[in-house]
Amino acid sequence: MEDVGITVSKDEDFSEWYTQVVLKAELADYAPVKGLIVLRPDGYSIWESLRATFDKKFAKNGIRNGFLPILIPESLLGKEQKHFAGFNPEVFWVTHSGTNKVGDRLALRPTSETLAYTLYSKWIQSWRDLPLKINFWNTALRAEIKATKPFLRTSEFLWQEGHTVHATKEEAETEVTKMLKVYENTVEEELAIPVVTGKKSEKEKFVGAEYTTTMESIMPDGKALQMGTSHFLGQNFSKPFDVKFADKDNVEHFAWQTSWGVSWRLIGAMIMVHGDDRGLVLPPKVAPTQVVIIPIYGDKTKNVILAKSKEIRELLESKSVRVHIDDRDELSPGFKFNDWELRGVPLRIELGPRDIERQSMVVAKRYNGKKTDLGWADIEKIPVILDEIQSDMLRVAREAAKSRTVEITDYAELKSGIEEGGFFNAPWCGRVECEEKIKEETGADIRVIPFESKETGSRCVYCQEPSTCIPIFARGY
Amino acid sequence: MEDVGITVSKDEDFSEWYTQVVLKAELADYAPVKGLIVLRPDGYSIWESLRATFDKKFAKNGIRNGFLPILIPESLLGKEQKHFAGFNPEVFWVTHSGTNKVGDRLALRPTSETLAYTLYSKWIQSWRDLPLKINFWNTALRAEIKATKPFLRTSEFLWQEGHTVHATKEEAETEVTKMLKVYENTVEEELAIPVVTGKKSEKEKFVGAEYTTTMESIMPDGKALQMGTSHFLGQNFSKPFDVKFADKDNVEHFAWQTSWGVSWRLIGAMIMVHGDDRGLVLPPKVAPTQVVIIPIYGDKTKNVILAKSKEIRELLESKSVRVHIDDRDELSPGFKFNDWELRGVPLRIELGPRDIERQSMVVAKRYNGKKTDLGWADIEKIPVILDEIQSDMLRVAREAAKSRTVEITDYAELKSGIEEGGFFNAPWCGRVECEEKIKEETGADIRVIPFESKETGSRCVYCQEPSTCIPIFARGY
Repeated sequence: MEDVGITVSKDEDFSEWYTQVVLKAELADYAPVKGLIVLRPDGYSIWESLRATFDKKFAKNGIRNGFLPILIPESLLGKEQKHFAGFNPEVFWVTHSGTNKVGDRLALRPTSETLAYTLYSKWIQSWRDLPLKINFWNTALRAEIKATKPFLRTSEFLWQEGHTVHATKEEAETEVTKMLKVYENTVEEELAIPVVTGKKSEKEKFVGAEYTTTMESIMPDGKALQMGTSHFLGQNFSKPFDVKFADKDNVEHFAWQTSWGVSWRLIGAMIMVHGDDRGLVLPPKVAPTQVVIIPIYGDKTKNVILAKSKEIRELLESKSVRVHIDDRDELSPGFKFNDWELRGVPLRIELGPRDIERQSMVVAKRYNGKKTDLGWADIEKIPVILDEIQSDMLRVAREAAKSRTVEITDYAELKSGIEEGGFFNAPWCGRVECEEKIKEETGADIRVIPFESKETGSRCVYCQEPSTCIPIFARGY
Repeated sequence: MEDVGITVSKDEDFSEWYTQVVLKAELADYAPVKGLIVLRPDGYSIWESLRATFDKKFAKNGIRNGFLPILIPESLLGKEQKHFAGFNPEVFWVTHSGTNKVGDRLALRPTSETLAYTLYSKWIQSWRDLPLKINFWNTALRAEIKATKPFLRTSEFLWQEGHTVHATKEEAETEVTKMLKVYENTVEEELAIPVVTGKKSEKEKFVGAEYTTTMESIMPDGKALQMGTSHFLGQNFSKPFDVKFADKDNVEHFAWQTSWGVSWRLIGAMIMVHGDDRGLVLPPKVAPTQVVIIPIYGDKTKNVILAKSKEIRELLESKSVRVHIDDRDELSPGFKFNDWELRGVPLRIELGPRDIERQSMVVAKRYNGKKTDLGWADIEKIPVILDEIQSDMLRVAREAAKSRTVEITDYAELKSGIEEGGFFNAPWCGRVECEEKIKEETGADIRVIPFESKETGSRCVYCQEPSTCIPIFARGY
């Protein structure tokens, strides 16, 4: 039985632990092509749950979904030069269809700005067509030469890319902020992961953007993960792609644009932040199965215990709880406990002969392992217990993130600190030279300049010149 | 204003009419690569609606969704030879990533049997892992050399592909039938399109399948459209891909498999079957906007009429009706009527000063143009009216299909009939030679051998030998 469960500890070998959880909890598997993975139903279900939440929020904000093809002609991709240069080494190229050579080589979408804006320039004529706000759920492809890591480093990844067009700079900038806020509250509320939001430095921004806003989270190994970005594109694309509109006065203007995206990295973050040595720990809101009932019976008690299990399931399902009864005859309760712990189901109900006598059941929380008795009369409390688990998981994750976040002004401390991992708030002069030197000497990037960061009269941790802000430095995924 | 609306009649130039409806109702547009299209929000919304319906039905049938990457190595695609030969001329090949040549060429998924079953063979060990039923919502790519036709003939198309594995032949065959039934009732209930279900001939079946079941519909131009297929794969893939399981007695067996799919062709069918010279006509169940309210006012009446419009919208929205108020100031009511007719919105409410006086409104049905007065007190009837429209549209479409379906025993009649278009029930001896001759001489295929078709003692329409069944012959898309 040993190799069924997780065989390494999260603290001791984080990377191997992560891979084992992904594979053994049956979230994903490797595809036959290096760099590519497959999602199994439990993994994809988490993505579907996030998509449903985002879709509701997008719709409230007037954003609708569309579809773009995966093939982009090379000539189009190169139209915004900086943008193209950024993606060029990572692009997969189609050169043949059947035995025929295609004319202009076709890129597999690394991102769709160039394609979307070619169309937008046809669709937008006047102020009446604005704002135009469309989101696309699809995959992006970027060749990865480094080792594959499911959800975190793959050559094809599930994501959404939103692309909006506005008549004014102000409106576009408001949209950028609004979408980052949507990301922030969804990740915190659904995945129970705290994030830090702010701007990327000039060096780290999306090539082609005026500026990039980001949300970053710290992982248990002290490395930062970029959880989502929202870009203010200004008129960088509207000019080469001719996205313009006649205003009410009939004068033509170039439009103002935004783009924003999150990917299945969010699932990777969820695994890393909440998982433990027994396997996956799922926040109730995104768990495919929220409650598993394990009936524990002998030959004599089988019927009554199974009947009661079904009764409990029906009652919970009527309250929109997702429930599964594990009635596999040939497996022991102990094996089943381990199996469902590995798969991260938030709540386990154990129902044995003694529970029937006492009109009660044992309820075990996955995230902290605590067991309590719950009388049958209190079954209605289970949705509340699930909500409590959800908010407790966020609280615990917030405390962990806080304990890994340090304020620092001394460069030697930063250097040694970064070896251990963590988020380091350190003053910076704003010059790319210092940013590059720090990266070179410590491996840490500027992950984010938090929105609340202000010039504090302190001095750059690297050059000792007056600082302009206090970014978070960290090594990243 | 003329070029805003549809400029040709459906009867006179069906093909041009279709393209105009797709583009002008803003369902889709051409992408910059030949053969590829883009879905605009109104077009994609119909796909989302179908997907939601199918997902519910799939879930009830124990099918869950997963994700497969788009790249398949050439060696894998070639593992089932007949299958590979069928797709080979249509495959897009990736040969480079960045400036590097990839080793084994990578195919863009023409369909995922080979990839899915490579994984299934890892995932399935014992009877306990069966049945395995996973569906994938994605796109497939097949290079099209003929003229592009949105939704009907494109090199990349949205679809779903379901792949199931079973311990017994019987169970797999039951699944094939069940899924075709899901397709049939969804298309009839949601899209109001009648279908004929049955088997494909050996010549027309999916390469690699034991047999293919299909649903076919007749279009207004008399041509057949394949609306969806469900394949019994037997052990044709389980053997080369080593999909086997240990049964309860610990003996290993090759598994039995099915695959089934529908694509956005369904949207193409919906446009063709229901549209008219004014444009698109949407069945209420899939319409992004079900009711459009056109307030008709002068300066004095504006406030009261807009207020009432909003009241009606709120009331309808509380009954889950999707409503839009067209309050664009600068456009005339007549322009708005045409605009929403073009876009196919099932029900229009007109609200003018006289309606306010009479506490009433004018209600116009898109599909038949009929206008009636509806008192404000009867507003609750609108969801019922929408249901009636939905079933009326199916009834009308059923009558049209029936009028285009002919029983025929004489070959000369078949030949001349096919020139006009239609579904021709004609007896057939079952030999591929006759099937090929008929195709050669008339351009008609065997579209489907209906499930209810029985040997009738009649003689093959081509060779006059005794017939084995009565298929439907027609020219197809």
